[in-house]
Amino acid sequence: MSFQRKDLLGLRGMTAQEISYILDTALPMKDVIQRDIKKVPTLRGKTVVCLFYEASTRTRTSFELAGKYMSADTINISTSTSSVVKGESLIDTGKTIDAMGADIIVLRHGASGAPALLGKHVKARIINAGDGFHEHPTQGLLDMLTIRERKGTLEGLTVTILGDILHSRVARSNIWGLTTMGAKVRVCGPATLLPPEIEALGVEAFTSVEEALEGADVVNVLRMQLERQQKGLFPSIREYARLFALNKERLKRCKSDVLVLHPGPMNRGVEIANDVADADFSAIEEQVTNGVAVRMAILYLMMGGGTANGSVH
Amino acid sequence: MSFQRKDLLGLRGMTAQEISYILDTALPMKDVIQRDIKKVPTLRGKTVVCLFYEASTRTRTSFELAGKYMSADTINISTSTSSVVKGESLIDTGKTIDAMGADIIVLRHGASGAPALLGKHVKARIINAGDGFHEHPTQGLLDMLTIRERKGTLEGLTVTILGDILHSRVARSNIWGLTTMGAKVRVCGPATLLPPEIEALGVEAFTSVEEALEGADVVNVLRMQLERQQKGLFPSIREYARLFALNKERLKRCKSDVLVLHPGPMNRGVEIANDVADADFSAIEEQVTNGVAVRMAILYLMMGGGTANGSVH
Amino acid sequence: MSFQRKDLLGLRGMTAQEISYILDTALPMKDVIQRDIKKVPTLRGKTVVCLFYEASTRTRTSFELAGKYMSADTINISTSTSSVVKGESLIDTGKTIDAMGADIIVLRHGASGAPALLGKHVKARIINAGDGFHEHPTQGLLDMLTIRERKGTLEGLTVTILGDILHSRVARSNIWGLTTMGAKVRVCGPATLLPPEIEALGVEAFTSVEEALEGADVVNVLRMQLERQQKGLFPSIREYARLFALNKERLKRCKSDVLVLHPGPMNRGVEIANDVADADFSAIEEQVTNGVAVRMAILYLMMGGGTANGSVH
Repeated sequence: MSFQRKDLLGLRGMTAQEISYILDTALPMKDVIQRDIKKVPTLRGKTVVCLFYEASTRTRTSFELAGKYMSADTINISTSTSSVVKGESLIDTGKTIDAMGADIIVLRHGASGAPALLGKHVKARIINAGDGFHEHPTQGLLDMLTIRERKGTLEGLTVTILGDILHSRVARSNIWGLTTMGAKVRVCGPATLLPPEIEALGVEAFTSVEEALEGADVVNVLRMQLERQQKGLFPSIREYARLFALNKERLKRCKSDVLVLHPGPMNRGVEIANDVADADFSAIEEQVTNGVAVRMAILYLMMGGGTANGSVH
Repeated sequence: MSFQRKDLLGLRGMTAQEISYILDTALPMKDVIQRDIKKVPTLRGKTVVCLFYEASTRTRTSFELAGKYMSADTINISTSTSSVVKGESLIDTGKTIDAMGADIIVLRHGASGAPALLGKHVKARIINAGDGFHEHPTQGLLDMLTIRERKGTLEGLTVTILGDILHSRVARSNIWGLTTMGAKVRVCGPATLLPPEIEALGVEAFTSVEEALEGADVVNVLRMQLERQQKGLFPSIREYARLFALNKERLKRCKSDVLVLHPGPMNRGVEIANDVADADFSAIEEQVTNGVAVRMAILYLMMGGGTANGSVH
Repeated sequence: MSFQRKDLLGLRGMTAQEISYILDTALPMKDVIQRDIKKVPTLRGKTVVCLFYEASTRTRTSFELAGKYMSADTINISTSTSSVVKGESLIDTGKTIDAMGADIIVLRHGASGAPALLGKHVKARIINAGDGFHEHPTQGLLDMLTIRERKGTLEGLTVTILGDILHSRVARSNIWGLTTMGAKVRVCGPATLLPPEIEALGVEAFTSVEEALEGADVVNVLRMQLERQQKGLFPSIREYARLFALNKERLKRCKSDVLVLHPGPMNRGVEIANDVADADFSAIEEQVTNGVAVRMAILYLMMGGGTANGSVH
């Protein structure tokens, strides 16, 4: 099995077999990141263009390193520092990058659906690195890889996603991926940040953090977008921290071997307490390593890597 | 024949033999861009520094990929994101880059003549990537490569350049190159955007787009710099679009096998109509591919590539 | 001997043997920069992340090229163009870079001591590329390499550092390094820019440039930070130039074979006169080349290069 789709747009609609295959492929990539095996020439002569319409250091660097660890050429185009792309349509920009010989375009865009649109108009394969409030599939995959490594499986686990669910593409990709893999997903946040239709995705919604954490195997704490507070959509940061921050007291309601995730960067003292962020049951740095690994796996599989019939869980 | 000049400053004064030689060298480079042949180690160990005093994603990315496709190391210095270069003279900056071991400096600068000045003070070879209203020679070369590929020759063709001629280095490089290669060049735009002395360069000037297109083999549509409109130099954008936009109706005056070029990024609905931009007779994406190819050829020839006596048309 | 310390935080406390060993290692690196020998694969598979919290083109480019000349992968993260890192603590950012597999983090930060703090929390090795008013050790090393090349030795020389001593990390690294190597160091500037305790570092302080230059072997002219003038800490730029600029007249008081250094970028006509900057006794471009060489040496030694027992002066 290799990567059958042209583009990686989201985890919605992806099968458990496909997800497992990506995670299986990602696992050995960690040896390259951790220098247990040498840099590999797998993608020599391939070109990966990171086209970012929203600023992001973390995700962009992760993709850039994923490419470099396999000897791909990587190019960054970020519209925050680029004036020329301004005024040009996304499709025209994409066709230009296509015509320059890009094999893969990693796209981050403020509009939900932008990667799907671009994918229809270019030959290069598209990886969605976050689009609006829609999906951030590589984040979902790295979260699942981290959980699977720590827990052995995803099936049957109770995972609580805590924070601003309404504006979170991380939450959506986690929901699609985890439910497909057989986990039970709960979402929790202030009522103003919980989309009313969210339970239609097969999750349970909570406004009480205490109830949401009861017996959870995993808590995935979302980053609070401080800049959004001004819009008055939810309680003040101080209020949020008081009511929803993940602290040791609240964690007692979870299973004793609970695992805590956070996509970073963390607002310590806002959505997560210091002693939770730095505890052994938190896997925040493992998530970062797994993020590079998952992106290496995607790049590799998209460029034709993988075995004929795959090795699927 | 290899590249005889130290620097590539412009197409003015370049012989037909030199231009043909560059275009001949660029042609096979397309196989690398389109992955028909593998990335080549030709420039391994060479360093190309892109020094951009004006923002540009398209040209900078094109040079960066051209270098990477031949295994050169590429470094970007863009003054829009750099505070340290501020206040330092161009020559001191150039000498610094020289002393760091750069082989080639690709320079974009707002002042006409900046590349010529720099070239006199540094050991590194200079490629002009656009200087003021002066020249943009690699754009001229890629336009000529595209015409030659589509038409078989440049000699005897009628090429109409349409738009803001006054402020266009693209127009100037096209004029020098095309007239040298034996094409007949027309320029057309609002009277306020036509430099009075332009006919001294051996071109015909028009303010009527209908007359300028009559029997043309090629139309090269310039990008309208929307930000310049505020200066009151020409009619409003709406007015410009009404009077000068290249649309299907106007194209009927050209030869039936007309070829349309645009350096990009396009302002669709301003200088070019959608159905023209996307038509088969438009070669806008080929131009992008040819842009990388021409830049590969220049880098290659400057670093000593090419045969002893050349293969010239 | 290889590089014994985990991090390169400053020249304070470094032994003469260590400094000599780095300079000895840097010397042959110049052959790579000047293309007398080919690019080397020494650091293939190693990742160098330049994490710059203050803008810098010169130092960042120098480190980036140093890495590339030895085939390392280099990644730039500059907070001026990065919004995501904003709000995240330095240590969290460092741990993220660590978890992505970085071998070396090159850190520039506005706060004195930031590299030392980071070094304690990450596995990657830290190179201080300038922290607050504290140290800029690779600048100190390149200055010493340049002096040693021109003068044959550092021991016994009289070196005058001229300018804004108070705010200069370059001055501090030079003072620590040069005094360790047996040079006699003088500092000179307006009284408001001379820290009162500076003589405790084993240097002589002067407010008269004429006295400070008397019999000097080397003058190291600091860059005047024009943006600091507004704070009213010293005389106007015009006044400074009149009283302290290094010009040919003042240079007559130095030894006849005086050597002039400047870390760049120069404010010509402010701290240094044109005819001094461009004279043969100025080594400003050699400093740039030596800067890349010293950084190559540090990267090389940190990654385990160097002989078992070293070759020390």
